[in-house]
Amino acid sequence: MSVITIERKVLEKNDQIAQKNRDDFDANKVFTINVVSSPGSGKTSILERTIERLKGKLIISVIEGDVQTDNDARRISALDVPAVQIVTNGGCHLEARLVRDALENVDLDKTQLLVIENVGNLVCPANYDLGEAHKVVVVSTTEGDDKPVKYPNMFRNSSVLIINKIDLVPYLNCNVETLKKNALQINPSLKIFETSCTTGEGIDEWCSWLESHVVK
Amino acid sequence: MSVITIERKVLEKNDQIAQKNRDDFDANKVFTINVVSSPGSGKTSILERTIERLKGKLIISVIEGDVQTDNDARRISALDVPAVQIVTNGGCHLEARLVRDALENVDLDKTQLLVIENVGNLVCPANYDLGEAHKVVVVSTTEGDDKPVKYPNMFRNSSVLIINKIDLVPYLNCNVETLKKNALQINPSLKIFETSCTTGEGIDEWCSWLESHVVK
Repeated sequence: MSVITIERKVLEKNDQIAQKNRDDFDANKVFTINVVSSPGSGKTSILERTIERLKGKLIISVIEGDVQTDNDARRISALDVPAVQIVTNGGCHLEARLVRDALENVDLDKTQLLVIENVGNLVCPANYDLGEAHKVVVVSTTEGDDKPVKYPNMFRNSSVLIINKIDLVPYLNCNVETLKKNALQINPSLKIFETSCTTGEGIDEWCSWLESHVVK
Repeated sequence: MSVITIERKVLEKNDQIAQKNRDDFDANKVFTINVVSSPGSGKTSILERTIERLKGKLIISVIEGDVQTDNDARRISALDVPAVQIVTNGGCHLEARLVRDALENVDLDKTQLLVIENVGNLVCPANYDLGEAHKVVVVSTTEGDDKPVKYPNMFRNSSVLIINKIDLVPYLNCNVETLKKNALQINPSLKIFETSCTTGEGIDEWCSWLESHVVK
């Protein structure tokens, strides 16, 4: 039995469990996003700003994926939003099965928006469906404008691109227009937001997009 | 046959080929480093500054690993240093076998310093020995000061930490002392450099370290 066969079997099994998750989200009218990026692009900070804006308007639940530590779940819990931490113990991506286990601790009946924050990795999480409605890929301007062409799968499989740390552009060798052009070349239907968690730029537009997709 | 067994077998096989690479490096007195980091931390830029400083002093060869594109090899070749590009086509890390194939195009007899630039990924490359003398992990200050605790394997398996984009600290919420403390907690023997490819800070110290390790 070749490794390739095993990998295909792992992905097939993952897709089956992802579909069960999706069925549960649909049955409970929960809008679910899977937030993916490199380490340190600002996923958790965007989530903090999002929760600050939407708390009181929407009932949000969060599943945090990390290789190690429950730092991120603690940051979210500090905002009085229920957060379940998945520690992968070296695993480089979340799988549908891990999310399914975590869902035992999520009140889907009450939740309107479920945010799954994936492990910081711009490669492997691209291939694993978790049952989400959309993958949202975050890229920091500090990573440069060439990331979509160098890591195309993630941009191809995402519906939304958040270009974060937009406030740092004056200090960087990053052309945002080139970054957007590169991303749209890979995936012309990407919805793009430009954000800064420091200045708050773009967070309102991003939150409006989320609100417009919530179905209950 | 379980997936765990397959993974262990893959790693064992990888280690065997890595040892062959290492034997070849030793036989030819080539000092080899494996540079690892998140996407966009500045691996290629550091390499460009390093080559500018050391060209004429040392004979350098480069193996570039990327998920897609040969952009990085072209950046290195522009500096008149031989660069071999490995495109993993979606693969999230370099393996010893891929490096072994690439070595067919590297003149080890002449090379004094071989730099292998891995795929941008702070998780998976940690587990794959390529035959290098040292793993060098690069972290950008823009990624925040908590990365060592969130991705400990990479810091545990590296000998050197380069903290890059040090010039951006005034604009960031990143405490470099905390970052160093976190890294040394995981691996107390880490040799740490602080660099900026924009101002050139720290590049001389890093290059001196490389020079002191070259053996022919």
